[in-house]
Amino acid sequence: MLVIDRLREYVKENRSDIVSDLRSLIKHPSVSAQGIGIDECAGVLNGIMRDAGLESRMIRFEDGNPIVYGEVKGESSKTLLFYGHYDVQPAEPLDAWRYNPFSGIVTDDKVHGRGAADSKGNVIAVIKAIKAMLDLNGTLPLNVKVLIEGEEEISSVHLPAFVKEHASMLKADACVCFDGSLNPSGSPNIYAGLKGLLYVEFRARTASVDMHSSLAPIAPNAAWTLIKVLNSLKKNGRIMVEGWYNDVKVPSKDDLALLDRLEYDVESIKKDYGVKEFIGKVKGKAALKRLLFEPTCNIAGIYSGYVASGSKTVLPSEAFAKVDFRLVYDQRPDELFNMLKKHLSDMDFTNVEVTMLGSLEPSKTDPNARIVKAVASAASNVYNIEPLVFPNSWASGPDYVFTKLLKMNSVWTGCSPAHANIHAPNEFTSVRNVLDGICYVSSIVQEFAK
Amino acid sequence: MLVIDRLREYVKENRSDIVSDLRSLIKHPSVSAQGIGIDECAGVLNGIMRDAGLESRMIRFEDGNPIVYGEVKGESSKTLLFYGHYDVQPAEPLDAWRYNPFSGIVTDDKVHGRGAADSKGNVIAVIKAIKAMLDLNGTLPLNVKVLIEGEEEISSVHLPAFVKEHASMLKADACVCFDGSLNPSGSPNIYAGLKGLLYVEFRARTASVDMHSSLAPIAPNAAWTLIKVLNSLKKNGRIMVEGWYNDVKVPSKDDLALLDRLEYDVESIKKDYGVKEFIGKVKGKAALKRLLFEPTCNIAGIYSGYVASGSKTVLPSEAFAKVDFRLVYDQRPDELFNMLKKHLSDMDFTNVEVTMLGSLEPSKTDPNARIVKAVASAASNVYNIEPLVFPNSWASGPDYVFTKLLKMNSVWTGCSPAHANIHAPNEFTSVRNVLDGICYVSSIVQEFAK
Repeated sequence: MLVIDRLREYVKENRSDIVSDLRSLIKHPSVSAQGIGIDECAGVLNGIMRDAGLESRMIRFEDGNPIVYGEVKGESSKTLLFYGHYDVQPAEPLDAWRYNPFSGIVTDDKVHGRGAADSKGNVIAVIKAIKAMLDLNGTLPLNVKVLIEGEEEISSVHLPAFVKEHASMLKADACVCFDGSLNPSGSPNIYAGLKGLLYVEFRARTASVDMHSSLAPIAPNAAWTLIKVLNSLKKNGRIMVEGWYNDVKVPSKDDLALLDRLEYDVESIKKDYGVKEFIGKVKGKAALKRLLFEPTCNIAGIYSGYVASGSKTVLPSEAFAKVDFRLVYDQRPDELFNMLKKHLSDMDFTNVEVTMLGSLEPSKTDPNARIVKAVASAASNVYNIEPLVFPNSWASGPDYVFTKLLKMNSVWTGCSPAHANIHAPNEFTSVRNVLDGICYVSSIVQEFAK
Repeated sequence: MLVIDRLREYVKENRSDIVSDLRSLIKHPSVSAQGIGIDECAGVLNGIMRDAGLESRMIRFEDGNPIVYGEVKGESSKTLLFYGHYDVQPAEPLDAWRYNPFSGIVTDDKVHGRGAADSKGNVIAVIKAIKAMLDLNGTLPLNVKVLIEGEEEISSVHLPAFVKEHASMLKADACVCFDGSLNPSGSPNIYAGLKGLLYVEFRARTASVDMHSSLAPIAPNAAWTLIKVLNSLKKNGRIMVEGWYNDVKVPSKDDLALLDRLEYDVESIKKDYGVKEFIGKVKGKAALKRLLFEPTCNIAGIYSGYVASGSKTVLPSEAFAKVDFRLVYDQRPDELFNMLKKHLSDMDFTNVEVTMLGSLEPSKTDPNARIVKAVASAASNVYNIEPLVFPNSWASGPDYVFTKLLKMNSVWTGCSPAHANIHAPNEFTSVRNVLDGICYVSSIVQEFAK
């Protein structure tokens, strides 16, 4: 049995190898939205996994980015599956970066670059934890499977089909999605469920060309049509599409008990973003409850007509809005999308089209499940702080492929720094956080093996 | 007394001088929105007016574009004021032009260039008509005053103050705003009134920076706030701002009688712009009535958040919309703007600001006024078609400075071709239309002098 102190020594001794492999991953761009460097990065990752002692390979499919998958047999018949991703967000705007986003430059404790925190540092933590256990003990206390995909930043388009097709290969007693970060108090966020997502675009077309706005008394305006559509979607914070809440499960007693114990400073969001009041003037625990358990309908973008400076009297023939819906357990994006289409036709919006741009199902794991307890114990062991275990997350991810398609319990966590400029310029991770992450993953394996 | 045939001969004989002066005006850009070439163009215009026999000068003021103003004394004590403008819209996008927009290239009957139709061809028609009458008769049948401004394309910002200050200089029995065009049947449109305009921008700010859309259950979204504001402005086609219709005068019996006689094919708008149905499925004369007499609230532009391709889950902190209101007699933009501000505060939209970007008051002239009859007769004389006299226009212009500030009757008309790409690339005018316009203006003077 490994003790944490021995692990801490090990990662210190191997710091330069660990950092070197992390930098090597960062130097291979792997921007899935732009199709840059995917194969090369997957190849490098596969090499790092093999070096760590995993039986690893790249699994390619026709029109998707390869999945890198590896296994190590352990001492018991128990199996733990780890999920991560090697693809990254685009680095634009490039001139906003202090250092080249694909150089992996190290300054003191920081490693800079696109993907450093989201999620190459997390991936390195998982792989190096396995190597650490093998190096120190010669064996693992249970079987470990590692699935690293290359499409997380583009809605994991091929992951559901892959998982269904490889269900027996991926069979495990539980899953840890290691793609998260620490909260500002310094311990990892642990989520026993993620929201789903339905991302759509509404497009109104009311004429073949734009008109002079003097025709407004009789000519239909695409922007007005779009606004009527958007306005029909929500009333007093509630989504007005028929059937939208049909499959929403109320939080369980255990979820609510967990919420009640959560020491999360939701009020700090106001200061961070310059918000005066939350919607409905909700505060504290009530705000947190909404954040975790409410489905949303968010306008992510809207555009029509003349938007440069000054005035132009135009009557727009076209308008569009991008809207993302966060879904809670057990809403299903495909069904909801059909409800949206029905809503448009019921309300006679015949010149408005809705297109689905992406979707993820929500996931949920019982907060009393063994994997949740094991991960929470590991976090306590490594970070010496009572960890924050959330009964649900406000963000989304492909966790449902494990909970729903593979019917296993799953937890979302990770070791990246709290404010690491994820999806923004000047992303970085901290070497200390990656080294702690290695200890964290090792401890999760130990705890779950118990 | 001039007869039309003698005038037609005259313009044919002087065609090359007329075209040369029009080209000279076009070659001097005079883009008011961009401050390009204003003074030079005003100087050239002043020269052309002096050559025509007008006592003309450039009147400069501190922060506006000069007004070119000229007079000719005539045989009677009656005075007719002509209004026009020498400034033009920006020519962008430049690569969409077949010919250089500031070259004034002539092909067959066409003169190409920015401002050819709007409104340098009209200005040339007014000036050359005066020259024609002086050349042919040695005198005019009444006093003529000509005011050509340089800010029509930027809402005539300084014209109201100028007119008030120079009220006695501008004193006249009636005004003809010569800035219009022919309808497709070939006769000039004649308007006994123009709509006013209030152009505003609404800007919602709900946070200091954009957020991840996972915060949507509690964080206010500027796009949603803006949509609530816009939606509160209109219901079933009616503007819902308190007091908005207070000063709307219903069309007079004479206006309605004129409307009843109007042979205007409003249905052709559907074909021209690819519109399936007018708002409320209104048709024919009923559609025309709405077009002429209804105040409007038109969204000219709206923007917020992420509008590039694909999906980004952002919660926008800022959103804006440009909205133009067309006003009918006797609505006043300043009062309406205050009503808008009150509306926002009454509805508790504390994080939304409204800014005025431009305004024009509506104008109205009795369709039985002598100037309306004189212009209609002149149109019949020259174009040999029953002219279209509209009791009101659906478009806007600074006509109100004459009807309201100077208390005279005024008519809006002009001689530019029907589809001349005004405000768009490849603007042109037709030499024949300019020559006819000279006869038209001469005939207006004759008819009003009767």
